[in-house]
Amino acid sequence: MAESHLRSLPEWTRLAAHADRMTLPENHLKHLIKQTSRLENFSISGCELFYDFTRQRIDAQVLKSLVNLAKARKIKQRFNQMKAGEVVNTTENRAALHTATRSFSADPVMHDGLNIMPDIRRIRDEIRQFSADFHSGKIAGVNGQLFKDVVVIGIGGSYLGTEFVATALQSLADKNVKLHFLSNVDSDNFGAIIERIVPETTLWIVISKSYTTAETLANSNMVLRFLTEKGLQAKNHFVTVTSKGSPGDDPANPVLKSFHMFDFIGGRYSVTSAVGGVPLSLYLGYDRFEEFLTGAEEIDIHANTASAEKNIPLIAALISVWNINFLGYSAQGLIPYSSALSKLAAHVQQLNMESNGKSVSSCAEPMDVPCGSIIFGEPGTNAQHSFFQLAHQGRPFPIEFIGVLNPGNDQYTGKSKGVTNHQELWANLMAQPQALATGKDDKNPARFFPGNRPSSTLLINDLSPKNIGRLLAFYEAKTVFEAFIWDINPFDQYGVELGKTMAGDIRNEIAEKNKNPDYQFDNRDSVRKFYLDVLFNHKI
Amino acid sequence: MAESHLRSLPEWTRLAAHADRMTLPENHLKHLIKQTSRLENFSISGCELFYDFTRQRIDAQVLKSLVNLAKARKIKQRFNQMKAGEVVNTTENRAALHTATRSFSADPVMHDGLNIMPDIRRIRDEIRQFSADFHSGKIAGVNGQLFKDVVVIGIGGSYLGTEFVATALQSLADKNVKLHFLSNVDSDNFGAIIERIVPETTLWIVISKSYTTAETLANSNMVLRFLTEKGLQAKNHFVTVTSKGSPGDDPANPVLKSFHMFDFIGGRYSVTSAVGGVPLSLYLGYDRFEEFLTGAEEIDIHANTASAEKNIPLIAALISVWNINFLGYSAQGLIPYSSALSKLAAHVQQLNMESNGKSVSSCAEPMDVPCGSIIFGEPGTNAQHSFFQLAHQGRPFPIEFIGVLNPGNDQYTGKSKGVTNHQELWANLMAQPQALATGKDDKNPARFFPGNRPSSTLLINDLSPKNIGRLLAFYEAKTVFEAFIWDINPFDQYGVELGKTMAGDIRNEIAEKNKNPDYQFDNRDSVRKFYLDVLFNHKI
Repeated sequence: MAESHLRSLPEWTRLAAHADRMTLPENHLKHLIKQTSRLENFSISGCELFYDFTRQRIDAQVLKSLVNLAKARKIKQRFNQMKAGEVVNTTENRAALHTATRSFSADPVMHDGLNIMPDIRRIRDEIRQFSADFHSGKIAGVNGQLFKDVVVIGIGGSYLGTEFVATALQSLADKNVKLHFLSNVDSDNFGAIIERIVPETTLWIVISKSYTTAETLANSNMVLRFLTEKGLQAKNHFVTVTSKGSPGDDPANPVLKSFHMFDFIGGRYSVTSAVGGVPLSLYLGYDRFEEFLTGAEEIDIHANTASAEKNIPLIAALISVWNINFLGYSAQGLIPYSSALSKLAAHVQQLNMESNGKSVSSCAEPMDVPCGSIIFGEPGTNAQHSFFQLAHQGRPFPIEFIGVLNPGNDQYTGKSKGVTNHQELWANLMAQPQALATGKDDKNPARFFPGNRPSSTLLINDLSPKNIGRLLAFYEAKTVFEAFIWDINPFDQYGVELGKTMAGDIRNEIAEKNKNPDYQFDNRDSVRKFYLDVLFNHKI
Repeated sequence: MAESHLRSLPEWTRLAAHADRMTLPENHLKHLIKQTSRLENFSISGCELFYDFTRQRIDAQVLKSLVNLAKARKIKQRFNQMKAGEVVNTTENRAALHTATRSFSADPVMHDGLNIMPDIRRIRDEIRQFSADFHSGKIAGVNGQLFKDVVVIGIGGSYLGTEFVATALQSLADKNVKLHFLSNVDSDNFGAIIERIVPETTLWIVISKSYTTAETLANSNMVLRFLTEKGLQAKNHFVTVTSKGSPGDDPANPVLKSFHMFDFIGGRYSVTSAVGGVPLSLYLGYDRFEEFLTGAEEIDIHANTASAEKNIPLIAALISVWNINFLGYSAQGLIPYSSALSKLAAHVQQLNMESNGKSVSSCAEPMDVPCGSIIFGEPGTNAQHSFFQLAHQGRPFPIEFIGVLNPGNDQYTGKSKGVTNHQELWANLMAQPQALATGKDDKNPARFFPGNRPSSTLLINDLSPKNIGRLLAFYEAKTVFEAFIWDINPFDQYGVELGKTMAGDIRNEIAEKNKNPDYQFDNRDSVRKFYLDVLFNHKI
């Protein structure tokens, strides 16, 4: 086990000294970006990605010390151990093998003494076959018509990644298939969906590893009542993605098809497993899903083999740690200049905040530095017209910009002010990092821009399935690299347990009152009693 | 003008001392919430809202000092001045009269020596008439069929509030009308819309006060080319909401109808003006829009007249300032337990961060305390399965929970684990603030919950237009009250100017290259040159 007391590491001490130096006026970003060969020294290409960190508040010495920190923390070895199936999720005594789900290598991946790749391939084949049958009409609605609506029932990691990918690749989707997400237990989520679907030609995919998630069960039960009312049955309309032998994989409750998921793949890392594979193959076609997997696999190989200096997710993770622990930023913006990437921030928000929002090391010792940060974002240029006032003149936070080089859907573009819509978008993508970094002096304090606000820019060529796979795996690798630097466990989530337990207690009280209207709520906690009374009185 | 040096105010000094006291172990929230009459003393009702701040890290002394701060800063007087049409937007020498747009009072509102209410009423009448004609088919597509799709072309304040309200009231919408938003200049935004509409029965509403917003112009131009290709014309398919006499209100470019907006209503405060009124009336019917206005008006009156101690947005603003300036939180979560409120956080993010993300006072002196905070959120319970790990065990941030007492769409609800879906939702809404506040001891640090994480809960009765109006006006009043405490100007946004200027420079270079393919990009800035070359080479 690595040392959890980061502050005592010589590399950490050195970085702290660099941080003091970087606050000096001569190290303002407006000066740093004028350094000779700034672009050459502070950007990396690989896997058809371009990662530009010229506008981060670092210089050559900081970069070198960060790379030394990565080496001291052996983070590449850890990534390799993760990929090889070692028990990196120590608190839950599990491996974390999301990388295996997109491996097309002939090499075995061993887990508990068994090669898991045959199982992974079998499930891919099942998805391919099911998707082909779905598109050909071999599997169809009870009236023999093709399924037209697919509803994913799942919450958190069971849908956010899929929603990101489906939105990003929407222009490639089968025009006859609509994809919906029933995540929230709120009946309005269900109400909005049933207005838009035809029950006879709707397929429901219930996704839950344990098949005990309260929200997903409550929603499946509601859908089952809806189907019954329409004279339809789960065996013709339900598909499950769940652990082998879970209540969702029980022959006593027949469904159209069950796909298996494994305990060595965590929810927020599961997009490339059957969790994403089943809905995305129905929406986009299996081949596009496989292209997406190959993009993710490329990044896994890059993360595992590229030298630290040329390793895109590793350098991005080091910059995160630098910004969080040495420059003291507690939040990060994620701003893709692409409407199609509008769901990326919500996915990365979960991926990163649930993985790294921790206060203990992987061996459960309290950390001596803060970990994780708040991640939020909206697409650009929209964000410029929303919260960028605060980014430029209020409290600073680092931003990751994402640019897509070649536009989709530009058949109607002409020129406005002499440029196409896509060029207008790029003029803004280029201007914002510059404005944030350099700022502008002005005698009028209301028009003064302090600058020195750091950002990175990540470029992809276009919105192909392969590039979306690269983007997904980039954020996964970045997240686990951050965790490996801190030596925290990015695969558990004990922080969600207390709320679940308390909700269970309250649920029991409500259930009691449902059974027995004379039941009086416990008055030991007057706030809780107030809410329960209000809930049953239906009036504030 | 009030003093911009807040730190020297006696009330400020007193609050700073309270903050020290509140960090003592005996003032952990798990103890505070057990105080006698905690609920009675730390909650307020009014306008059918219930605002519970029992789980904020405050006690009676803090609350009293906060109220004294509000009085010292004369924030209620300022609200009154704003509502009465005084020039509260000092830097731009304008009034801020969004409250007038929902006034149904017979009293005049004077601006520049004129009563503006007749104009406000005239525009409401025009919206009512246009909406009636739209729904009756008196105004229809060129083929005589009713319009079926309405596309709002606008960015930032020209659409975010409307999107929030439309999503919240979706279940009440005219089932024959679909509402879309074309905000981003990214051609993918346009591409996704044209796949879903029928051009002959689509109405486009272009919203821009100046009619010079680069994104909105570029998008309108793209739509005009699209219409021309389809043999259609702006005079039958375009509606504009813009300033009188702007290029969007020019008889030389005829449109179906122009609605006027005024320079005394800022974009992010404009939902209750024609900006929200035109699209919302077409989508929901004018009467529902007016109901929505009456809810907003109620809160304006409450904010203006309720005593500080019983004033919901004022107390909420004081708590924001307490959390930001005295307890040091730099971000705030906004978590509505309602899918229908899924766009609330994006709206409030703009409203609050663009208004209060400032560093200078209203008389342009540098502030001596930080203002504004990052605002982000997703609906609950979704957020619990996403970033709540960090909220419970990582870095703390205050949260505003929102509960809707009576569900919509619950016709298929039954019981799962003995409770309905809505009750399950509420069990979670009740559990989270409690878990965040009290935490849980555990010998295993990985299962230890520090607690002491503050939150408020705001309840509304249901998703009626009136309650959504109340919610909208609550956040507007809260935002301006925060600004009045700091004495910053919540109505300007100079922070967005530098990026615009730089984008303009880059746009000019791109336009030059479009005209002259031999043009070589200026190589004084190698990073900029790199991006421009990449853009024209179409390859990373």
